[in-house]
Amino acid sequence: MNAFETPVAEFPRSRHLWWEDGTLVLLDQTRLPDEEKFLRLNDLEEVIEAIYKLRVRGAPAIGIAAAYGILVAMKNEIGKPLPLFVEEFVHARDLLFNARPTAVNLGWALAQMADVVNNYRQSDARGLYDRLELKAFAIHSEDIAMCGQIALNGAPLFPADARIITHCNTGFLATGGVGTALGVIAAAHKNRGVKMIYADETRPLLQGARLTAWECHKLNLPCKVITDGSAAYRMATEKIDGIIVGADRIAANGDTANKIGTYGLAVAAKAHGVPFYVAAPYSTIDTTLIDGSGIPIEERPAEEIIRLGDKNLAPIGTLVWAPAFDVTPAELIAAIVTETGVFRYPYDFLKAGK
Amino acid sequence: MNAFETPVAEFPRSRHLWWEDGTLVLLDQTRLPDEEKFLRLNDLEEVIEAIYKLRVRGAPAIGIAAAYGILVAMKNEIGKPLPLFVEEFVHARDLLFNARPTAVNLGWALAQMADVVNNYRQSDARGLYDRLELKAFAIHSEDIAMCGQIALNGAPLFPADARIITHCNTGFLATGGVGTALGVIAAAHKNRGVKMIYADETRPLLQGARLTAWECHKLNLPCKVITDGSAAYRMATEKIDGIIVGADRIAANGDTANKIGTYGLAVAAKAHGVPFYVAAPYSTIDTTLIDGSGIPIEERPAEEIIRLGDKNLAPIGTLVWAPAFDVTPAELIAAIVTETGVFRYPYDFLKAGK
Repeated sequence: MNAFETPVAEFPRSRHLWWEDGTLVLLDQTRLPDEEKFLRLNDLEEVIEAIYKLRVRGAPAIGIAAAYGILVAMKNEIGKPLPLFVEEFVHARDLLFNARPTAVNLGWALAQMADVVNNYRQSDARGLYDRLELKAFAIHSEDIAMCGQIALNGAPLFPADARIITHCNTGFLATGGVGTALGVIAAAHKNRGVKMIYADETRPLLQGARLTAWECHKLNLPCKVITDGSAAYRMATEKIDGIIVGADRIAANGDTANKIGTYGLAVAAKAHGVPFYVAAPYSTIDTTLIDGSGIPIEERPAEEIIRLGDKNLAPIGTLVWAPAFDVTPAELIAAIVTETGVFRYPYDFLKAGK
Repeated sequence: MNAFETPVAEFPRSRHLWWEDGTLVLLDQTRLPDEEKFLRLNDLEEVIEAIYKLRVRGAPAIGIAAAYGILVAMKNEIGKPLPLFVEEFVHARDLLFNARPTAVNLGWALAQMADVVNNYRQSDARGLYDRLELKAFAIHSEDIAMCGQIALNGAPLFPADARIITHCNTGFLATGGVGTALGVIAAAHKNRGVKMIYADETRPLLQGARLTAWECHKLNLPCKVITDGSAAYRMATEKIDGIIVGADRIAANGDTANKIGTYGLAVAAKAHGVPFYVAAPYSTIDTTLIDGSGIPIEERPAEEIIRLGDKNLAPIGTLVWAPAFDVTPAELIAAIVTETGVFRYPYDFLKAGK
């Protein structure tokens, strides 16, 4: 690679995700914590596979990966006439859009890319490709900035020496920047010290144990992993100052879709008087949905629950119910932290506008 | 083996646990569902290891195994003078007692065996051994009978075509008989049909996925495995007719220690108006404890959460909080089903007597 041709340092670059030499480089999160393996994704199929198989996950990171996925798909179409280039774009966008149905950021990032196409008034594919690349970089850079602002906005929610429960992974691995909920926790730790982060292991894919514990280790944050079923008992046996989680999609009334297990955690928080917070980019709010009943909930394959690696956790053929997400009603959420501010229940994002 | 010397058919015999030729035979539950391997335990160390490592688990089954563990320890001491035999007995009893601290049945079964020793008025060790053997068989037989009665008593709690959530494993693998909570469910299914059993996978040791799903498969019961964090969302999205779990120890006021995750399930049940039941032998009730605060809660090693087989689920060195059990307050429990009857909240087992 010639550094003068590709001034990488000016590209947005996350610890786990960046664009380099016409490929999407990403850390394969399915291999953590055992192995820190970076993939170089060079065609659209690979990007879709990486999103579907959760090699990259976390709603904001998926959005960034999808924007780069468009570049991966289009970089070999630059020589084509514009109408064919646009046709390929639409095809790639549709394929990426269907990789995972719940995260709104995926569709949001793809819509941003489509706006570039729709607003393009020149005739050469090269020029359109360059604008798509700039837009992908902008989506990535804005996410970095947004995460920082979310962390700043959310940190004051916690007292000094707080004990905090979190679910799934919402740190730098889930975004382009410092993360959403875990970014808030890290900022709170920097400000006033956090006593303990209890990380739900987050079955079935164990993003809490595999990823959040790994990030906490990298960032020197105090962390204990607990099974998802232990969180309520932790609240009953120790003062917990707050719970903060991310979001995959938020309806206009504040109902929040997030990783399966979030709803049960919110129910337990309410029973124990523990404030329950959500942290997410404002783009996670889908104002086309009046409430959470309209959020499509992805079902995952049985194998994710009943197999781990090559080990059967249940008899072969066992039936499962395996939603990837659940919906937490707005009334269980004390505040929603975004880069534009901290919103308190009751929420009315339709009126709040954007 | 000469069938005339050892009339096995007259011994109590469970599907997974029995006394044969001076050894304790048991199905190694840690190898399920992949392998149905029976162990023949021939010395006390092996029995203690099997109990500690959960090769046999479930409070009633542990009690039976402990009684047979005494036989395993004493069968080679028969030639000794009685005082030495009794000394060995006390030693074996103490070692077994410390194998696991929470299950009251372990101590209860050992106390039954100790009563035999204390009430023995003759002078030969052989005679005392024979009585210990009879007592172990009685403990086992009584458990079989008790399970049947618990199932009969509990089955009417559920309507026809019920949808039921359960936690951990409380079937035949956990007892000498048909089980406790899962025995009730099986009886309900026989009576009026059960539509679906949702089996919490029950982290960290996955007794729900590994054992309950396996038993349901063996017994042709309709079953879907869910992650522990999905149970609350299942209640929010489908009518659940009841939840029934087992117990490791019940205080005089009805506070119930059971597998970690039970408490969170009970909190969610209350939030959704789903009746929450406990099924257990009356011997699980420890009237020496006024309430659940006195129940010792075993902490398990970190490896049980952060490793599975040879796979790291979290970075090496990750801290965990790993209680094996939690305590569900009596006010969250609609009824406690025992072989002596169905008790309703508020409970007063001190007054109820035995």
